[in-house]
Amino acid sequence: MARKQLRVGLVGHGFMARTHSNAYKSVSQFFDLEYEPVLQAVCGRHRDDAEAFAQQWGYASVETDWKTLVGRDDIDLIDICAPNHLHARIAIAAAEAGKIVLTEKPLARNTAEARPMVEAVEKAGVANLVWYNYRRIPAVTYLRNIVASGALGRIFHYRANFLQDWTISQDVTQGGGNWRLDSAVAGSGVTGDLLAHCLDTALWINGSISSVTAATETFIKERKSEDTGKSESVTIDDAVEAIARFGNGSLGLFESTRYARGHKAAYTLEINGAEASLAWDLDDLNHLLWFDHRVDGPLRGWSRISVTDAEHPYLSHWWVPGLGLGYEHSFIHTLADFLEGLSAGEQVGPTFRDALETTQVCDAILKSAATGQWESPSES
Amino acid sequence: MARKQLRVGLVGHGFMARTHSNAYKSVSQFFDLEYEPVLQAVCGRHRDDAEAFAQQWGYASVETDWKTLVGRDDIDLIDICAPNHLHARIAIAAAEAGKIVLTEKPLARNTAEARPMVEAVEKAGVANLVWYNYRRIPAVTYLRNIVASGALGRIFHYRANFLQDWTISQDVTQGGGNWRLDSAVAGSGVTGDLLAHCLDTALWINGSISSVTAATETFIKERKSEDTGKSESVTIDDAVEAIARFGNGSLGLFESTRYARGHKAAYTLEINGAEASLAWDLDDLNHLLWFDHRVDGPLRGWSRISVTDAEHPYLSHWWVPGLGLGYEHSFIHTLADFLEGLSAGEQVGPTFRDALETTQVCDAILKSAATGQWESPSES
Amino acid sequence: MARKQLRVGLVGHGFMARTHSNAYKSVSQFFDLEYEPVLQAVCGRHRDDAEAFAQQWGYASVETDWKTLVGRDDIDLIDICAPNHLHARIAIAAAEAGKIVLTEKPLARNTAEARPMVEAVEKAGVANLVWYNYRRIPAVTYLRNIVASGALGRIFHYRANFLQDWTISQDVTQGGGNWRLDSAVAGSGVTGDLLAHCLDTALWINGSISSVTAATETFIKERKSEDTGKSESVTIDDAVEAIARFGNGSLGLFESTRYARGHKAAYTLEINGAEASLAWDLDDLNHLLWFDHRVDGPLRGWSRISVTDAEHPYLSHWWVPGLGLGYEHSFIHTLADFLEGLSAGEQVGPTFRDALETTQVCDAILKSAATGQWESPSES
Amino acid sequence: MARKQLRVGLVGHGFMARTHSNAYKSVSQFFDLEYEPVLQAVCGRHRDDAEAFAQQWGYASVETDWKTLVGRDDIDLIDICAPNHLHARIAIAAAEAGKIVLTEKPLARNTAEARPMVEAVEKAGVANLVWYNYRRIPAVTYLRNIVASGALGRIFHYRANFLQDWTISQDVTQGGGNWRLDSAVAGSGVTGDLLAHCLDTALWINGSISSVTAATETFIKERKSEDTGKSESVTIDDAVEAIARFGNGSLGLFESTRYARGHKAAYTLEINGAEASLAWDLDDLNHLLWFDHRVDGPLRGWSRISVTDAEHPYLSHWWVPGLGLGYEHSFIHTLADFLEGLSAGEQVGPTFRDALETTQVCDAILKSAATGQWESPSES
Repeated sequence: MARKQLRVGLVGHGFMARTHSNAYKSVSQFFDLEYEPVLQAVCGRHRDDAEAFAQQWGYASVETDWKTLVGRDDIDLIDICAPNHLHARIAIAAAEAGKIVLTEKPLARNTAEARPMVEAVEKAGVANLVWYNYRRIPAVTYLRNIVASGALGRIFHYRANFLQDWTISQDVTQGGGNWRLDSAVAGSGVTGDLLAHCLDTALWINGSISSVTAATETFIKERKSEDTGKSESVTIDDAVEAIARFGNGSLGLFESTRYARGHKAAYTLEINGAEASLAWDLDDLNHLLWFDHRVDGPLRGWSRISVTDAEHPYLSHWWVPGLGLGYEHSFIHTLADFLEGLSAGEQVGPTFRDALETTQVCDAILKSAATGQWESPSES
Repeated sequence: MARKQLRVGLVGHGFMARTHSNAYKSVSQFFDLEYEPVLQAVCGRHRDDAEAFAQQWGYASVETDWKTLVGRDDIDLIDICAPNHLHARIAIAAAEAGKIVLTEKPLARNTAEARPMVEAVEKAGVANLVWYNYRRIPAVTYLRNIVASGALGRIFHYRANFLQDWTISQDVTQGGGNWRLDSAVAGSGVTGDLLAHCLDTALWINGSISSVTAATETFIKERKSEDTGKSESVTIDDAVEAIARFGNGSLGLFESTRYARGHKAAYTLEINGAEASLAWDLDDLNHLLWFDHRVDGPLRGWSRISVTDAEHPYLSHWWVPGLGLGYEHSFIHTLADFLEGLSAGEQVGPTFRDALETTQVCDAILKSAATGQWESPSES
Repeated sequence: MARKQLRVGLVGHGFMARTHSNAYKSVSQFFDLEYEPVLQAVCGRHRDDAEAFAQQWGYASVETDWKTLVGRDDIDLIDICAPNHLHARIAIAAAEAGKIVLTEKPLARNTAEARPMVEAVEKAGVANLVWYNYRRIPAVTYLRNIVASGALGRIFHYRANFLQDWTISQDVTQGGGNWRLDSAVAGSGVTGDLLAHCLDTALWINGSISSVTAATETFIKERKSEDTGKSESVTIDDAVEAIARFGNGSLGLFESTRYARGHKAAYTLEINGAEASLAWDLDDLNHLLWFDHRVDGPLRGWSRISVTDAEHPYLSHWWVPGLGLGYEHSFIHTLADFLEGLSAGEQVGPTFRDALETTQVCDAILKSAATGQWESPSES
Repeated sequence: MARKQLRVGLVGHGFMARTHSNAYKSVSQFFDLEYEPVLQAVCGRHRDDAEAFAQQWGYASVETDWKTLVGRDDIDLIDICAPNHLHARIAIAAAEAGKIVLTEKPLARNTAEARPMVEAVEKAGVANLVWYNYRRIPAVTYLRNIVASGALGRIFHYRANFLQDWTISQDVTQGGGNWRLDSAVAGSGVTGDLLAHCLDTALWINGSISSVTAATETFIKERKSEDTGKSESVTIDDAVEAIARFGNGSLGLFESTRYARGHKAAYTLEINGAEASLAWDLDDLNHLLWFDHRVDGPLRGWSRISVTDAEHPYLSHWWVPGLGLGYEHSFIHTLADFLEGLSAGEQVGPTFRDALETTQVCDAILKSAATGQWESPSES
């Protein structure tokens, strides 16, 4: 079919801008969609860097001020890959300009900042999405489908962690390009960066969280600042542990850290129900573990499913059974689903409103870590 | 060498009595020890059952009252495999009678009950031990040795869980033989039964815990009682989640449950330090996972060590490299170490005093689950 | 830099045409190369199918006769994704026309057919390549680099297998589109299809093979023909087992089958040297297993390396540590290396001549299976 | 019940004598049997060593000449743990003396030597057994039961290997105590030592082997002799690779070596049928891998069964679900089954006749390695 062009204006050209750009460039070869993304413009403060990125990825033009980008008539969709503290103002301006708005996660630094973003896109009636990409790893999507089918029975436990080790060295600096260690820019440390992924998936799979208790820790208290050149207090959380109670009565256990030596991107999750359990590990992303208590007794075991068959989510668009996908495919799938939703006139999650809930849980966790009390996300 | 006989009086003849008896019978064939256990007497309320056990295992005599057993002159060591609520009175009586006292874990139902036990054995000056057997799985012992060597550098994280699934069915009853579901007998549910294992090992490997926050849950609220035949409230915790702060500044995360479908005895633990990490899983008990950041960059990985070489703890007493041991060997090793300590005049842990600390952490966790506050074990 | 356009003419539009096209489209975004592939033309017998493919992937034009394609002045490179029996005539014509020639593996149906292809490209002096893509899975490339460094010491064993299960059903037909079951088109069954992958990698990693003994089996003797509609004898090998002696004195063991229930694309390989061993599994493609005997005794183990660091082959072009790649990346890497070789004026393997050796070993294996004798590839 | 005493006379006191003695000492505590083994006598050439062994294990007496042992009236069962070259003469003498005869594997050095052993026990009508212990690892027994039930459908493939690395160093000597490197004593190298295990299990699970082709290699050609002190030619096979055709039409692939760096006792096996597959690994001995094609498509996977439930073979005699057994349990199970067979008047395998078939396959493999031809075991 003849495709409708959807002209993308991308803000930022870092790591996430690459994963999104790859999705825009690849999606049409693998999915039959009404809309075809067109790489119209990329925006960055430093023109040289932005132009290099534009050339590498084939963006047709370059801007150095996101306000100019948002104001352009030839842009249909604004995609925000700028640091967290910029999400709100860009998203709100884009919504007010009637653009489709996508933003890299987390939605914002905190609930107070996020709420007006939700209001803005809903008031403007524009399609919106937060790129919590792990929902669209095929094994995760399939896991969610199984849970949604009710095959697990009553749910008792959900646990997830996201472990890294890249900030253990005292030599890692904060500020400047390392904005993930700067709470003024990032909002928080691992809670908004890593735990937010765990929470988005958990809420999607297992429903809302009613209360939490938590601890955070900053293991290295002072680091050299890229901005001032001096040693300054570290303001982010290096690690977070949380216990949660879900609305369905199940217990949740969560952990994120950048101090788990040996783990680079150890995102694992598991859900236990009365009849069956499921588990997934990003380090083995094309497989799903499945335990079904209904199997005949002595043959029961944890089944390692290769989620690479045409019957599995998204896989009919790719290769043949047994041949695995990689990390970036999750972004292509996110985009494909979003574009299908756009054609169907249906909002595809995680919307800004969905992501607001994740932000509320993050805030409740950070609050609990400060107060030592159980806290409720609904009050964030 | 000519061995000195050590005459054992065993209280109880259930599952744990079998693992202990096997240790008494096997230890001398595999370890060269001064002391040789002699199966002198087994005690059980029902003479027929006790006699059947005595015949199966070769105990020389049978008692039906533990007080009689404790009073016998031809018994050197009392080993308690009776339900938890009996530990204190038997142990104290045995200590007062000058016997060596061993007890299956946990030490007692709670701290209040445990403290006099510690005082009794210390006042009597008798050797004592609690059978927290997992310390003597060779891979766990080796893990502890590596941590104790300082090879991990500063410790950031410790996490452990013990997951089972055997009480999910509503058909499981409480009371009668099922005393593990009866808090009057057991003291608590999974906290004292399963989490206590995780905590004993954690305290041994990573030092003391200063504070905890926790949640417990009883998923099935009423069960038929074996004692009354009626449906009654379940008084134990089915699941427990806890966050801990260790004295060394590291964060701990713990979970135990009998509602994790697919897990029969999923005891796993992991410790992360600045320089290296270690992990172990009871489901793969002869291996240890080791990540050493000092390895040359691109060759770094999680190394799966087969802890079956003569250089590994206990292994020179067994077979040849590559041939794994089983669960019950941990009891044989516990006994071998205890007997070696007896010869050397050194107390080998976990002593009653060591186990008291575990009980204090359990109590702080249960208290936190009730109060919703952070609690300190030292105040238990 | 300004890139030189390299105009691609692709023959075929099946599964492999998709993997190659994806490589042509993606390589320039991830690798800084002098040459930039341009999707100039795709060729297929049925115009409609070819046009659909051209639209999906962005090919500028369509041909229905490969001779016309080869004759076009605006094509620099011919890439052959047609069935095996067409490789020779297309490749030879393309070479004679002075085109760069790439072909999907295997080079040809047999040595007799392959030899003139090698002569043609070498006589014409055109760059050439056979797409044995598994060499460029980063973990495999890294494995080869380690072996080439001599770190394994004297090599004793090499073993590899490639197991599938897709032809077990009697309902699978032969002929028509299922040309892989038709020896007239494919040349052989699993030997040329799957074992050839194992052999290409083996020869690259461990050097030449001097002799082989082998068995083949056709488990289902008759299948319905798509061409005649009748049940006809199956002429391909369903499974092959081979023992090999390498030139370096090591022993090789190889197996390929389409009758290993539960395996979709189980390509595994392992090499054992005096000092160290390495193993890899396509089902876990981003990891490499490494055992180094020089490690201190009790800490020795099989290390599972996540081949996702910037220091690992190709990875600096992708994401961040811990985030895995998929199957199709091996084609992008193959193309990137080929294009870099083109710039440097160096032939990058596997060339037609390299692939001829693989074909010779395949032929020796098939001959041995027929004669029951040891056979030498050099005599093929 | 009152047990009948079965008085054991053990020949040898090395590694295998320990595993057998442990079985004799433990079997009665875990299995309810009519017969109770009594450790009557152990025989060794050096009295001091034999007496030390007797004391360690509780043997009532010591002999230094096996002929004397065989001649004693107070011995019911002769168990041979002497080096291979002594098996035949001791076994034949024991059979002629009317003793039950058990021998460590392999049955003998070769078929010529083994055949009279079979004749002797069958003529004497005495119960007999060869300790191929791996049949009685619960997961292996269960695997065999599943195959025997027909659940796999038509069998296509069987593969097994047994890999070690302990003779790689040139410093390993031959002769003296290292009789496994001395073909005059051992009969062969890895073929009779390791491959024999793989073959015994294979024949038991998958039926008879009709023909084989094979290669052997001696990587280190000369070693110092413990007997002469001089460097002498190594006469054993260091490694063996074999392709087999089973009577049921399936293909077999086998490998054993002592030169696979990183592998201590890597015995793995896998069987593929039309409907299902099974795999097992000694390094993870309490688990079984099971793939069932009849499972609903997208949920199909390799299920890792923890063979620790009461429903699994032998497990009701041990602990509780999730708690694994070790290597030596396979010997206890072998003995328990043998003693049950004795009570029932039924021969339990592997009998001498069963083991003769394994020896014939070994001989055919060694012959093929010498001739370069396919060879048939039935002609050995």
